[in-house]
Amino acid sequence: MPFFAGICRCVQVITNYFSHNAIVYTRNRTPLCLTFKTRLIARSRGPSQSLFPGRRWFSRGTGVRFMSHGTAGGQSAGRRGALAISGAAALTAAAAVAGLLANGNHFQRAEMATRISGAVENREQEAEIVERCRRFMSAPVTDISVLQSRKEEMRTKMELLIMETQAEFCKALEEVDGGTFKVDRWERKEGGGGISCVMQDGKVFEKAGVNVSVVSGYLTEEAAKQMRSRGKVLKGKDGKLPFSAMGVSSVIHPKNPHIPTVHFNYRYFEIEEEDGSKQWWFGGGTDLTPVYIDKEDAFHFHNTLKEACDKHHPQYYPDFKKWCDRYFFVRHRGETRGIGGIFFDDLDSPGQEEAFNFVKSCARTVVPCYLPIVYKHLNDSFTDEEKDWQQIRRGRYVEFNLVYDRGVKFGLATPGSRIESILMSLPLTARWEYMQEPDKGSREAEMLEVLRNPKEWV
Amino acid sequence: MPFFAGICRCVQVITNYFSHNAIVYTRNRTPLCLTFKTRLIARSRGPSQSLFPGRRWFSRGTGVRFMSHGTAGGQSAGRRGALAISGAAALTAAAAVAGLLANGNHFQRAEMATRISGAVENREQEAEIVERCRRFMSAPVTDISVLQSRKEEMRTKMELLIMETQAEFCKALEEVDGGTFKVDRWERKEGGGGISCVMQDGKVFEKAGVNVSVVSGYLTEEAAKQMRSRGKVLKGKDGKLPFSAMGVSSVIHPKNPHIPTVHFNYRYFEIEEEDGSKQWWFGGGTDLTPVYIDKEDAFHFHNTLKEACDKHHPQYYPDFKKWCDRYFFVRHRGETRGIGGIFFDDLDSPGQEEAFNFVKSCARTVVPCYLPIVYKHLNDSFTDEEKDWQQIRRGRYVEFNLVYDRGVKFGLATPGSRIESILMSLPLTARWEYMQEPDKGSREAEMLEVLRNPKEWV
Repeated sequence: MPFFAGICRCVQVITNYFSHNAIVYTRNRTPLCLTFKTRLIARSRGPSQSLFPGRRWFSRGTGVRFMSHGTAGGQSAGRRGALAISGAAALTAAAAVAGLLANGNHFQRAEMATRISGAVENREQEAEIVERCRRFMSAPVTDISVLQSRKEEMRTKMELLIMETQAEFCKALEEVDGGTFKVDRWERKEGGGGISCVMQDGKVFEKAGVNVSVVSGYLTEEAAKQMRSRGKVLKGKDGKLPFSAMGVSSVIHPKNPHIPTVHFNYRYFEIEEEDGSKQWWFGGGTDLTPVYIDKEDAFHFHNTLKEACDKHHPQYYPDFKKWCDRYFFVRHRGETRGIGGIFFDDLDSPGQEEAFNFVKSCARTVVPCYLPIVYKHLNDSFTDEEKDWQQIRRGRYVEFNLVYDRGVKFGLATPGSRIESILMSLPLTARWEYMQEPDKGSREAEMLEVLRNPKEWV
Repeated sequence: MPFFAGICRCVQVITNYFSHNAIVYTRNRTPLCLTFKTRLIARSRGPSQSLFPGRRWFSRGTGVRFMSHGTAGGQSAGRRGALAISGAAALTAAAAVAGLLANGNHFQRAEMATRISGAVENREQEAEIVERCRRFMSAPVTDISVLQSRKEEMRTKMELLIMETQAEFCKALEEVDGGTFKVDRWERKEGGGGISCVMQDGKVFEKAGVNVSVVSGYLTEEAAKQMRSRGKVLKGKDGKLPFSAMGVSSVIHPKNPHIPTVHFNYRYFEIEEEDGSKQWWFGGGTDLTPVYIDKEDAFHFHNTLKEACDKHHPQYYPDFKKWCDRYFFVRHRGETRGIGGIFFDDLDSPGQEEAFNFVKSCARTVVPCYLPIVYKHLNDSFTDEEKDWQQIRRGRYVEFNLVYDRGVKFGLATPGSRIESILMSLPLTARWEYMQEPDKGSREAEMLEVLRNPKEWV
């Protein structure tokens, strides 16, 4: 579920870097056709040239489409083009280091060499950002120039990570399904926006949604109160608390009842206080919702998560596994939603880099956690009764998401939210039978037993 | 949706009047088989004799079953039996009125005649209660002896009305569908219980649920706070506020997309204060959720409601129609759930009898509001696309019920609630498509237009 599918204004997507034709939706859903012009890029690569000619940033369905329409060019040409931005500076730096600038004393030369080597590093990092963005499903929510200008900040690192996670996962799913994701880009009036990737009624997946959102603005009094109730002491300047929040979230509902549903969500939040200092924290998790228990799958899923966690802290897996079972609990049914995984929130220790590295490990574990399970059951046959049971479990998924999920509740309660991104976590189809109860000793009863009494899988 | 599907303990259904074999579910859903013995009835009719041998008070599916297993006997025999309870008293009274008791003076005789005529009336009323109960789907939640002992109280009148409404509606639906309702009776540990009638996957109806609940006990502090926030000044004895609440609620989801979904709910609440006085109010409403607009249906539905309302107050229909549009609003979609009807709450004027009579008129309007529409579209043909659109609208129904409906929210938040009765309002199947938007000028778009801008139909 989207953690914060912010208020959407799918109107004008402004970007300084990309030459795009985009069909975007205004609030009343009338399609508009806009053309975005290249600016910065034009300086180094000439007009009408796409920075990323190799990447298909467009969807095949209806909705918002992004189509690069620059000149043709392979991946390597693109890379050269990207590096060309910083060509002049790099040349100067290299010349300095080689001692070709002979008009200074030793110290002057050393100082200049340091400065120049720093500039080289800077340019290389900036080029690296451009290079990373090339692999995304869409241009990042934040302008690349802005990301480059604050490349050391956690906001930038996290936005790149969530965009990368979205792209990696989408591509892995496209490969197994044969279908393609529809990419919708949307804007939030108050700042930021998101990129929703959805594949519906595919060969393997009934509905697959992978959503990124990056929003910023000022905390509402209600949100600040909620933060305080969570133990966060916040002092705003003139009562105002600027915040940045971003995350990637995904729910995948496969068609075959022997392939489980997966959900993950990784997010970052920061708030600026009166004195300019920042409070920040990470949250997230990955969890599995099978229709039938397959102990091998459960072990693989949990063990992959445990290995990722153990690299960072021996308590992470056991603590976050328990937290997951507690969080994904459908109270009125007395059942967990699935067989869990990990879940954590308010992670603000031991340090920002360490916490980020942990989140990075988790995010990079999504594909190895899930895809092997998908491939394993890809050709499993199933009966109508098994499909029915899947549909009933889908109904429970809907119950959890609409009744308990904090992200969904927050999103639905926020006027102007992008509902389609919030509710893309709902399955294509679901079923509610009155007084449905599996036969004793059946595989359905075995599943329920596990949901009523969460197990240790590793 | 059930207004208060109370805390359920489907364990031992105690009744003084009925001889039953019942399969009931304990909380962990293990079926138990219990036999209830007749008591009072045994005095007048002999042992093992059913009071209502004609009425099939049993379900055909799984769940709680009630089977009368007394001696055979037709409807008229049953009637004679029921009247036999008060036979001795009635005879005495008749004799007195005929002047056969000659041993008193004029005043004594007049007084006695009045008393006796009162007693006759009493007995007749008691017999009438028994007679009315015979037509219900199950024995009422409250013992008939208790209902008889407080036959003048509103609690009794309302319980009989909701039981009657349930039975009338169920029978009308059974007639058109050809299927039969499964009748589940459940108990609430703290007092009261309910009767849930569900027909699933019938010929005409995908899922039809008609639920009665009658609960009593003490208001929790939270509930009392909520009441106070609604402007009710409540003074409990030692902080305790005894309450009685009862209602009938129903949601019918037909298979054919040209037959609309209907929902109704009529309820009564009373709270006893410190000085023994009672605060009471009624609530309820009937509303229609079509998949396609049929103006004739909309007119018929609203006009039937309007006529029922107009008999009681000229402002009822216009006010309660508006209230209905406001209440059944899926805020995050900017759509009403359906084309409305009437909705009201906290109705405590002009007097208790008048308010009850209004509610009675509404409850008795359910069948004439809905059934003609069902019959009209019974054999309408439909396409796969129309069925898909119905399924998408079903998804919206689920969204309203799980996210906004007060009754559902209250029920789900109450530990130990009978979830199956609360959620029987959910459709058998539903669908969520990402970014689904009907074509301009289509019948689906026409439907959405009405949901986004509620109309006056009468």
